[in-house]
Amino acid sequence: MNDSMDRITEMIIQTYKEKGVLNHLEGPNLPSRKSIREIIRNYESIIFPGFESEENLDSELISYTIGAKIQQLAKDLTLEIRKSLKFGCRMKHKTEHCTVCAESAEQITLAILNKIPELREKILLDVEAALAGDPAARSSEEVILSYPGLEAIVVHRFAHELYLKEVPLIPRMMNEYIHRHTGIDIHPGATIGERFFMDHGTGIVIGETTIIGNNVSVYQGVTIGALKVVKEEAEVKRHPTIDDNVTIYSGATILGGETVIGENTTIGGNVWITSSVPANSRIYLKPPEYIIKNGLA
Amino acid sequence: MNDSMDRITEMIIQTYKEKGVLNHLEGPNLPSRKSIREIIRNYESIIFPGFESEENLDSELISYTIGAKIQQLAKDLTLEIRKSLKFGCRMKHKTEHCTVCAESAEQITLAILNKIPELREKILLDVEAALAGDPAARSSEEVILSYPGLEAIVVHRFAHELYLKEVPLIPRMMNEYIHRHTGIDIHPGATIGERFFMDHGTGIVIGETTIIGNNVSVYQGVTIGALKVVKEEAEVKRHPTIDDNVTIYSGATILGGETVIGENTTIGGNVWITSSVPANSRIYLKPPEYIIKNGLA
Amino acid sequence: MNDSMDRITEMIIQTYKEKGVLNHLEGPNLPSRKSIREIIRNYESIIFPGFESEENLDSELISYTIGAKIQQLAKDLTLEIRKSLKFGCRMKHKTEHCTVCAESAEQITLAILNKIPELREKILLDVEAALAGDPAARSSEEVILSYPGLEAIVVHRFAHELYLKEVPLIPRMMNEYIHRHTGIDIHPGATIGERFFMDHGTGIVIGETTIIGNNVSVYQGVTIGALKVVKEEAEVKRHPTIDDNVTIYSGATILGGETVIGENTTIGGNVWITSSVPANSRIYLKPPEYIIKNGLA
Repeated sequence: MNDSMDRITEMIIQTYKEKGVLNHLEGPNLPSRKSIREIIRNYESIIFPGFESEENLDSELISYTIGAKIQQLAKDLTLEIRKSLKFGCRMKHKTEHCTVCAESAEQITLAILNKIPELREKILLDVEAALAGDPAARSSEEVILSYPGLEAIVVHRFAHELYLKEVPLIPRMMNEYIHRHTGIDIHPGATIGERFFMDHGTGIVIGETTIIGNNVSVYQGVTIGALKVVKEEAEVKRHPTIDDNVTIYSGATILGGETVIGENTTIGGNVWITSSVPANSRIYLKPPEYIIKNGLA
Repeated sequence: MNDSMDRITEMIIQTYKEKGVLNHLEGPNLPSRKSIREIIRNYESIIFPGFESEENLDSELISYTIGAKIQQLAKDLTLEIRKSLKFGCRMKHKTEHCTVCAESAEQITLAILNKIPELREKILLDVEAALAGDPAARSSEEVILSYPGLEAIVVHRFAHELYLKEVPLIPRMMNEYIHRHTGIDIHPGATIGERFFMDHGTGIVIGETTIIGNNVSVYQGVTIGALKVVKEEAEVKRHPTIDDNVTIYSGATILGGETVIGENTTIGGNVWITSSVPANSRIYLKPPEYIIKNGLA
Repeated sequence: MNDSMDRITEMIIQTYKEKGVLNHLEGPNLPSRKSIREIIRNYESIIFPGFESEENLDSELISYTIGAKIQQLAKDLTLEIRKSLKFGCRMKHKTEHCTVCAESAEQITLAILNKIPELREKILLDVEAALAGDPAARSSEEVILSYPGLEAIVVHRFAHELYLKEVPLIPRMMNEYIHRHTGIDIHPGATIGERFFMDHGTGIVIGETTIIGNNVSVYQGVTIGALKVVKEEAEVKRHPTIDDNVTIYSGATILGGETVIGENTTIGGNVWITSSVPANSRIYLKPPEYIIKNGLA
């Protein structure tokens, strides 16, 4: 068996040499899924101490505890952002030797960390929106500890800041971490206003150039997507704009970069929309026709 | 950079002080997601020894092995239920000093553990239902080791017992653990009869006041939900009743607290129902009209 | 409390004795979910070194690193396949003493490992298809590190080889690992051609006897399933055939073992198909009729 193993190893290394690997042999590394996961967990525990595991938060120790978490986050983020920027450099300028990546990574990290207090305040508004919007929600603690839609927006707001700084790879990896855990697929490029509420969440897809206003609620299975998928259109606005105070019920699909859903509008379940809707509308599917057979078949 | 870190730490602690944290500073802790996860894994390994990792089950050691798992489950459950009850006390009576929470936690834990043998027998009927219902299922072992719908009902039956005892937070956290792992979102309040089968499962949503009879099968993407979402109606029955021997195919939506699906009924894929259906019905969508274009565009 | 614990332990052991357990008391073990997870992670890190966590890939060490991974994979696979084959033997021949399982396990493991270089080349074509098909994809590295559809096909191609060798339990456990992480539920029996692309992925279901050609793209919420679910039909082709160059947009449902979607066809979002479609078609739902109410309710 050992001879076979050696031969298989040799064949696999051959495909690495011919077809390339994820991390260039001898080249710089990329961010790993493990390191991104640790960054997210640390960030979440800064936003909501005790969220993942029990923590001692007595008021004498808290500066020390939070300070240590921020230090760790700064260190990990700087390292992973540097890898990402170097990867971006290699893609764009075909060079392995970037002179500014290390410094840029530190600057971006600092800018992002500075945003955390503001992000936390926004997230607390998202918690309020969930508590107000779901009859089954008993307390903001329940929302924080158990709502997948809340965890998705917590991470999206962070990933979106990295997206705005044009960091490659990491923002998408963060939102895919959340996609794996919640079934909610928000592209980190999507712009989302205050008091955003997603209930149940599974199957929600929100595209890169989507713009969502304040006080918007979205239910399971909703797609806010592109009308058709054409690689050449990567640079234009391909996804809809949703104005303030819109509710989109489960299974609805809203497509197209020129589609605007006007404010105070309700989109009913399973509705399929590919053009704009004026403000203050309520749109429901006509009751479908059924074939009903009574009596046992 | 260190000065900046200190300033950011200070700003974050400021938002904790002004806007509150998950665990009150100095106050009692809440159950953590990590501890709930460990409780679920222990419970699952009591129901199906060897499910997650290999175990030695020889008949001399088994009393010792299972006894130790039960002891651990009792200890963890008591602790987490006590935290939850104290949280409930604080919400209701505005006091940090509950005189009965500790004792209630022990009593509830004992009552729940006493239910496990009965839950196990019910779960084995769910396994039978999956084996009978899915042509692709080859053995009950395959169902146990790989069907997400089975894992969801295993955990739901446990969480539902805690819900009936009015334990805050934990039941929902348990079902959200399962939601994250399976894409199946069952509120712990839902009442579900024997021999329940969910195939594929992703996107299933079953609301808090749903009542489901025996021998019911539900496919991926089915919503059993509320007709409209009004916070004030939290105390009334907002979700449907599904009688015995009903099959609900993928993507169907059944809404409303007064909606009753009569026994022996089949609801076809993508059907949208907001009022009651008599027993022995078969309801299918009329074949939709398509725009068909032949020839390459 | 200790008396109660003892009594509960006794009751649970009683249900093991009466109703059976997953691993027969005293009998051979089954593959555990933990061991399958480790096999998948090791396999993924051979396909894409550095995918999960950082790795040192300098060209002097790489033979050693990959060699060690292959050795570990061979050892783990042999062990788990042997357990599965023994389980199959017990089901079929009612014997606990298989004379060929151990040797078959080694042969199958070797055959599967020999396939890895070829699988890797196929997977790199899947990466290309994702990069070509999604306007939001910036690089093949982004596809590899973050696309759930890519991870699903990476694991499916491996599980399918085990399925072809008629190994019980493991192939389905592998695809359910992926289902849990991506919301994509592909039965390991499904035959899938080259350059397969799934975007977003959540809610995709692909049945056991599905046959998919080359250059096929499938979006979130698509079901390729059985027309009706009858246990007796487990041995016939129950799921559709999708020819080359077909695109199936989100939420579409294609059912039935005799349904063939001809090449170069586009199936629009939410379309429901239960019979064959000729080549070069484009099928879209007629715009549905809405109830539109303007003005605030």
